[in-house]
Parts: sequence; C-alpha cells; structure tokens
Amino acid sequence: MKTVAPLVLALAASALAAPAMAQFQKPEDAVKYRKASFTVLAAHFGRVGAMANGRVPFDAKVAAESAAIAETMSKLPWEAFGPGTDKGDTRAQPAVWTEQAKFKAAGEKMMGEVAKLNAAAKTGNLDQIKAAFGAAGASCKACHDDFRKN
Amino acid sequence: MKTVAPLVLALAASALAAPAMAQFQKPEDAVKYRKASFTVLAAHFGRVGAMANGRVPFDAKVAAESAAIAETMSKLPWEAFGPGTDKGDTRAQPAVWTEQAKFKAAGEKMMGEVAKLNAAAKTGNLDQIKAAFGAAGASCKACHDDFRKN
Repeated sequence: MKTVAPLVLALAASALAAPAMAQFQKPEDAVKYRKASFTVLAAHFGRVGAMANGRVPFDAKVAAESAAIAETMSKLPWEAFGPGTDKGDTRAQPAVWTEQAKFKAAGEKMMGEVAKLNAAAKTGNLDQIKAAFGAAGASCKACHDDFRKN
Repeated sequence: MKTVAPLVLALAASALAAPAMAQFQKPEDAVKYRKASFTVLAAHFGRVGAMANGRVPFDAKVAAESAAIAETMSKLPWEAFGPGTDKGDTRAQPAVWTEQAKFKAAGEKMMGEVAKLNAAAKTGNLDQIKAAFGAAGASCKACHDDFRKN
C-alpha cells in the first residue's frame, strides 16, 4: 500500500482528535465541512422543490432519491459548529453560539421536517410532497433568518 | 406559505433545467456541488481511515455510519462534470473531458471500492475495514493523479 500512504495520511489527519471537535483537525476544516453538507442538502432539497413548485416535471424516482439524500445531509452539519468555528469563511451568526439551545431546536426542527419530506417522497404522492416541502422550506428559512448572515 | 416563497424560489431556481445539465442552473453551481460532495466524502472516508490506521480508537458504529455516508457521497459528484464546468474554481484537469471513458471508469472504480468499504464496515471487523480502506484509498489516489491538479 506504499503508494496510498500520502493520501491516507492526509485523510486520516483530518480526523485527528481535538477534545471538543473530535472529527476535525482545524476549525476551518469544520467550517468547510458544514458548508459543503449544506450545499449538497440545498441542491437535493431544491430538486424536490422544483417538482413541488411545478418548475420541472414530477419524477417520483428522482424526488425520492433527492429527498433521501437531503435527509442524510440534514444530520451532518451540526457537529461542525464547535468552539472556534465562528470565525473565517462563514455566514454563521454569533447567535449560533450565544443561543445554543435555540439553534439546536431550529436544527432539530429542520431535520424533522426533512425526514417528513423524505417519508412523503417515498409515497410518490405529489400533493404530500408539496405539503412537506413547504413545511421543510419554512424550517430552513426560520433558521437562516436567526442564525445566518444574508 | 408566503414567507417561504423567496427561499423556495432560490432553491427551485438551482434545479431549473438546461438540456445538458438538468440539475444545475449555472456551471459554477455544478462545480460548487461536486466539490461539496467530495468534501463530505473525504471527511467521512477520512474518519474510517483514521481508525483503519490506528490514529483514533476503533468504534464500529462510527465506522459503519461514516462508511455509509461515504458510499452515498461517492455517487453524487459525477453528474456535475457536464459541459462548461471545466472553468472557474476547480482543480479538475482537462483530461476529465478529453478522456471521458477513462474518467468514468476511474469514478466507477472508486464507487465500487467505497461500496466494498461500506460492506466491510457493516461487518464490524477491523481487518476487513483496513483492507477495504487501502483499496478504496488507492482508487481515490489513482483518479486524483490523472484528473486533478495538485
């Protein structure tokens, strides 16, 4: 495995433990990771939304696949808001850290609504998807309003 | 749903269809998406690797969760290498587009190896995880060597 070593080392380094942020070596790694997970979440949430809003033809298979990915992604960013990650290339508001209980609740609300969207998408019923998409979109917006700079 | 409209519109817009890149409105959206999916992939692949390399204590549950996310992510970036996405903030080499069959094969090799890593992680057997991680890491490196600028 000699040729793999540099890559393995580089990847492994990104997971070296610091007590408060076990999975990220540096705060900027956490910021990059959480932004990336929101980017992938938004892309797949947006695909379901385009169908819910009639902007693209409804394709039940694509909607179900995208909603499933969105649910997976919805769970990822939260561990990456640890200490020291309030600086750098981020639009996170200080309230993320000064109002942690409220932020946690907003994140859990979003995860719950995206899980419902995934459940709706599995039914293949566009009306159910529309309703769930609206509620999930509202949960995104509520958290952005309070915790993200425009 | 009045208050949701701007968010919904913004998200839906990202999925407006252009013939060759159905899921991205602009080439730079595709570039951002594929980089984000690789970032999340690398983070979770790296967590398994840190255990495979003994840098962090083996935790079968964390390894299985991370390998599952890595497999999900491994399937995402490929649709985002469409026409016009060879420019901008990307390290993709021209070979991605001039040697498409080779690039496709490299991507499929990686997906296959990451799927094997996920299967190994589900067993909870660290030796199997180590072997699968080595092979998967080699598939990452091979593609980076040929298709990504350093």
